[in-house]
Amino acid sequence: MRVLVQKYGGSSVKDAERIKAVAERVVKAYKDGWSVITVVSAMGDTTDELIAKAKQVNSKPARREMDMLLSTGEQVSIALLAMAIEALGAPVISLTGQQVGILTDDVHTKARIKHVDTKRLQEELNAGRIVIVAGFQGVNSRNDITTLGRGGSDTTAVALAAAIQAEVCEIYTDVDGVYTADPRIVSTARKLTDISYGEMLEMASLGALVLQPRAVEFAAMNQVRLCVRNSYNYHPGTLVQEERQVEKDMLVVGVAHDTNVAKVAILSVPDRPGVAYNIFSRLAVEGINVDMIVQTNKELNVTDMVFSTSRDDVVRVREIAEAVAQDLGAGDVLIDDTVAKISIVGAGMVSNPGVAARMFEALAEEDINIQVISTSEIKVSCLIAEEHIKRAAQALHRKFQLDAVKSMEA
Amino acid sequence: MRVLVQKYGGSSVKDAERIKAVAERVVKAYKDGWSVITVVSAMGDTTDELIAKAKQVNSKPARREMDMLLSTGEQVSIALLAMAIEALGAPVISLTGQQVGILTDDVHTKARIKHVDTKRLQEELNAGRIVIVAGFQGVNSRNDITTLGRGGSDTTAVALAAAIQAEVCEIYTDVDGVYTADPRIVSTARKLTDISYGEMLEMASLGALVLQPRAVEFAAMNQVRLCVRNSYNYHPGTLVQEERQVEKDMLVVGVAHDTNVAKVAILSVPDRPGVAYNIFSRLAVEGINVDMIVQTNKELNVTDMVFSTSRDDVVRVREIAEAVAQDLGAGDVLIDDTVAKISIVGAGMVSNPGVAARMFEALAEEDINIQVISTSEIKVSCLIAEEHIKRAAQALHRKFQLDAVKSMEA
Repeated sequence: MRVLVQKYGGSSVKDAERIKAVAERVVKAYKDGWSVITVVSAMGDTTDELIAKAKQVNSKPARREMDMLLSTGEQVSIALLAMAIEALGAPVISLTGQQVGILTDDVHTKARIKHVDTKRLQEELNAGRIVIVAGFQGVNSRNDITTLGRGGSDTTAVALAAAIQAEVCEIYTDVDGVYTADPRIVSTARKLTDISYGEMLEMASLGALVLQPRAVEFAAMNQVRLCVRNSYNYHPGTLVQEERQVEKDMLVVGVAHDTNVAKVAILSVPDRPGVAYNIFSRLAVEGINVDMIVQTNKELNVTDMVFSTSRDDVVRVREIAEAVAQDLGAGDVLIDDTVAKISIVGAGMVSNPGVAARMFEALAEEDINIQVISTSEIKVSCLIAEEHIKRAAQALHRKFQLDAVKSMEA
Repeated sequence: MRVLVQKYGGSSVKDAERIKAVAERVVKAYKDGWSVITVVSAMGDTTDELIAKAKQVNSKPARREMDMLLSTGEQVSIALLAMAIEALGAPVISLTGQQVGILTDDVHTKARIKHVDTKRLQEELNAGRIVIVAGFQGVNSRNDITTLGRGGSDTTAVALAAAIQAEVCEIYTDVDGVYTADPRIVSTARKLTDISYGEMLEMASLGALVLQPRAVEFAAMNQVRLCVRNSYNYHPGTLVQEERQVEKDMLVVGVAHDTNVAKVAILSVPDRPGVAYNIFSRLAVEGINVDMIVQTNKELNVTDMVFSTSRDDVVRVREIAEAVAQDLGAGDVLIDDTVAKISIVGAGMVSNPGVAARMFEALAEEDINIQVISTSEIKVSCLIAEEHIKRAAQALHRKFQLDAVKSMEA
């Protein structure tokens, strides 16, 4: 049995027409001889509408009840998609997260999958049925419904693919795959034929929103081959796997950017052990993600602590940072939300120390000032003024000849 | 532990304001010392909207998938009601049909409850929580979601009340209780303080749509005390129980009418054994409910077969009746959809043979012609022309002095 897992997001099932189109894709795969498991999200804006309803009755509803509410969105999708497939004459059954055996921990609205009991899934596949699964949801050990957080349907698809040892897990979206840069900003951006897990993880984390980072992590851990494809056409998409095969000569595979960034500076922090812990543990407790962190000693015993965070968290970050500054006897807190992050990603970087330098060169040639730098083994990120982001992306794309590399699909 | 089961229909939870109003009622009962189980239906027109969505992708969807789809309506309601109750500071948890242990047979869209596993329910009540339950739904032995058909939430409430031995099961609606006649037609109609199961069953079946007949039957079988109340006020409602206590002197408790009636006549049917079976078994196979049946021998060896049915089924009934008539060598099929049914109900009737005669007298005094008569131990029904229905109801209400009986609540 060759098993194929597919995942369609909310925009792919937003109305009856799109659901019918997805049904045709699913049936085509089935007729091509695959055992098909299709994971779907809630239709279009359903989740946002449900959240709005909740806010009308309770400004801060219990997370368990939020999960009870939100999980209905995917349940509607699976029933409608199963009906549409049935109308095409193929045998099909829909299953909720509970029915498909997705067991999670107890963290409502952000649960993690602990185990997948594939008994029912295997039965249905053995019976020759296409199985439509509600993404984003599972149950905890008490049989209470949990949800996996934003983008959780990707994780559902990968978890099922891992549990059932699927040949490939296709993630459908409204673009052709993973690009060397955002085509809306860099007109010469090119779709990648393949990319490694590590690179995909960096690209996803850095703002290329085609795949949920957690799903990529899960896929890498379980060696699930992912394929990012467009639900509007039959192009082959981008394969995400252990090592790049087709694009193997590329040093840098992509330029990613993120404008949902704010820079926070706590000035004149006394330079003594435990200060960084003091600041960042308080932010962590509040669930605030901190990205780049830089500490610069400008004078003896005093340091400026600079970090970047999401603009969504600016209000809470200011409160916490000011309280911490006061406790520590530090100076002012400055927040700049006119910055953006530009990054280059490539697994070849680790053995080529010149790559970061070439990035700085490209930005210097454009007279773009770098405010903060952060590096990992396979990426270099720089904070710059948001107004320069487009020029920066174009310059980096040129510098690393990303548009020049011949596509293998041509 | 004194357990109270409440059921609120779709109009009682149609928007955020109504949900908050219901939340207050529930919390009031909880603060009055009850262990409260509240069963809710889908909000307002949700079910119809979901059905419309299904029809867009499949004109005849599989019933299993229909149940998967429709059951989300109640799940949304329970989550929102639980959130609204939580906002009032009371401990609360919502449970789906599956979670509350409602096990049904396999008949999707019209399932019957086979068993209620009260383990989780009992745990939550013992923990001091208000339990909000999704009405209308359960699961079969395969863990597939089933629904109980129109008005199924009433049945859910009664089944839970029976399983947990609740003191009373309150059915909330938008009228004050069960009336001696429809107040829109008979202005002097009076709310009953109490009524017996049998009478309620007849009233419900005859068109007084405050309670699902199946739920009344289930309540009678399990001796669950029902109370029909208004969700917009705190009036005491109508109690449905084994024997009338307050209204015990009433011979007739109510006048019911139903205008969704058509009269079907198959003329000149050969009068031989098996003919009735032949006709009505075919209608039964098609799921058509036949109500009153009359057979009149006007000449030797030939009979006219007359019965009433719902106007919704007229097209299918004509097809079947004409096919049967041809097979049997009978004459024409006549269908009249301008008739209506008027009925009187009262448990005292069985020992008072004069009651039916007084009914006919009242109709004769109004010059209303009776087309078909049917009687049971506790009701008499007559088919008359629909145009006379209002006058008939008023005349019978007067004849049996239903407006004159003093209310015990005054």
